[in-house]
Amino acid sequence: MEAAKRFLLVLFLVSLLSISTAATTRKFRARKPCKRMVFYFHDIIYNGKNAKNATAAIVGAPAWGNRTILSGQNHFGDLVVFDDPITLDNNLHSTPVGRAQGFYIYDKKDIFTAWLGFSFVFNSTQHKGSINFAGADPLMNKTRDISVIGGTGDFFMARGVATLMTDAFEGEVYFRLRTDIKLYECW
Amino acid sequence: MEAAKRFLLVLFLVSLLSISTAATTRKFRARKPCKRMVFYFHDIIYNGKNAKNATAAIVGAPAWGNRTILSGQNHFGDLVVFDDPITLDNNLHSTPVGRAQGFYIYDKKDIFTAWLGFSFVFNSTQHKGSINFAGADPLMNKTRDISVIGGTGDFFMARGVATLMTDAFEGEVYFRLRTDIKLYECW
Amino acid sequence: MEAAKRFLLVLFLVSLLSISTAATTRKFRARKPCKRMVFYFHDIIYNGKNAKNATAAIVGAPAWGNRTILSGQNHFGDLVVFDDPITLDNNLHSTPVGRAQGFYIYDKKDIFTAWLGFSFVFNSTQHKGSINFAGADPLMNKTRDISVIGGTGDFFMARGVATLMTDAFEGEVYFRLRTDIKLYECW
Repeated sequence: MEAAKRFLLVLFLVSLLSISTAATTRKFRARKPCKRMVFYFHDIIYNGKNAKNATAAIVGAPAWGNRTILSGQNHFGDLVVFDDPITLDNNLHSTPVGRAQGFYIYDKKDIFTAWLGFSFVFNSTQHKGSINFAGADPLMNKTRDISVIGGTGDFFMARGVATLMTDAFEGEVYFRLRTDIKLYECW
Repeated sequence: MEAAKRFLLVLFLVSLLSISTAATTRKFRARKPCKRMVFYFHDIIYNGKNAKNATAAIVGAPAWGNRTILSGQNHFGDLVVFDDPITLDNNLHSTPVGRAQGFYIYDKKDIFTAWLGFSFVFNSTQHKGSINFAGADPLMNKTRDISVIGGTGDFFMARGVATLMTDAFEGEVYFRLRTDIKLYECW
Repeated sequence: MEAAKRFLLVLFLVSLLSISTAATTRKFRARKPCKRMVFYFHDIIYNGKNAKNATAAIVGAPAWGNRTILSGQNHFGDLVVFDDPITLDNNLHSTPVGRAQGFYIYDKKDIFTAWLGFSFVFNSTQHKGSINFAGADPLMNKTRDISVIGGTGDFFMARGVATLMTDAFEGEVYFRLRTDIKLYECW
């Protein structure tokens, strides 16, 4: 009977453990990404002269601005649409692995800050599907976090955080963003 | 004692099962929707002549475009705001069950592709509340998936995927989208 | 043996309980917020005369509108970018605790209705991080719900619902929104 009792005790503790695991699955979930990927994307804004190379264009502007030149006051009010190549390294001429598509709006007069809504769209042997992003981008900060608000295909139901870093900034025509995607919900 | 031991063994296996269930609730969750609904919505874009019937209007355009006619280069840069009727079948004249409200931006020069941010807004005896969507819409594909990023009312905290299909496309004035909403998180 | 059997029975029931808890963690989760916060934000739209005070500007408009005055037909088609101060009370002159940054689009001809995409951005000793919102805002309703679609920093991975209430509305230049944020997913 002693052996059986000891076994029962172990069993009981195991049961308790399983209950507490169930009840706290979410609350104490470790902040460790279930998936992590780094990409670069490259934005060449149309400036009246670069129609062939441009991947982005101003489509909204404040009353005091126009749609060819980014407006004063830190571009406040300029709405830009983009279809930018995504690469695995920081070379604009590397073979794109997907496209970053969506928009950003410069939304502050005093400093450069934007609001982003866009997707990473993949259609290669390595990745099929999309990752959707939204959030504020105070682009004078070295790094800033936006939200991964959903995903489809290989990234079905994804949620997480993406850390943006301006990797290059050339005049007002080209910039390159390093995007460190950390998914905390993977299905 | 034999019977008791066998019972203990069963119990132990059951406990193990419960632990693994708890720990993997999310990972292995079946990809079966907890709610599924199909709707159609109808977009009639303003073209200078149809002010009475139009449900959508161009409000942003690239430097080379205007806000009455969709621009060249696959409408790249056109931003359209809409308030479209939602119907249960594919008939524009069916009684609407809600409104699809939001915007789309054509974001690619080479082919038709858009980025969508919008809501389904319901206020009937059948549905009260809203479903919020965001994502890339490569509209030349027969079907394409966007994200359900949230919901309110009857669709409180909803998450999922919506599969879009262009059900009709007439010139550049009218299109109808079939929307197959699959929610994977229902509260 | 009787005592052991009774113990086994209890253990068995406990195991069953733990299984059912694991399987339904999500389904029956109480609809009680894990975090609740109330803020006000203040929108002063540029009207051609208030460049110094304005926190928002029209950057898109329909063909029949312009970017200095909100258009007719319930502002249908006007796209507004904002960088509004957030305060703890309803006083425009209180010290801001953060900025509300993003855009809204008036999207209906018959009544005032808008679609919102924006973030609350905090960078104080009390809060660091951002909360991202999206949803339809039928602003003639006393209260209306939009989605919290994500968060960063202190609001890492947040999801929930925000109830908006127009707290003041002065002509077509100033409005103040009370924002009652209820998070149902806190990490």
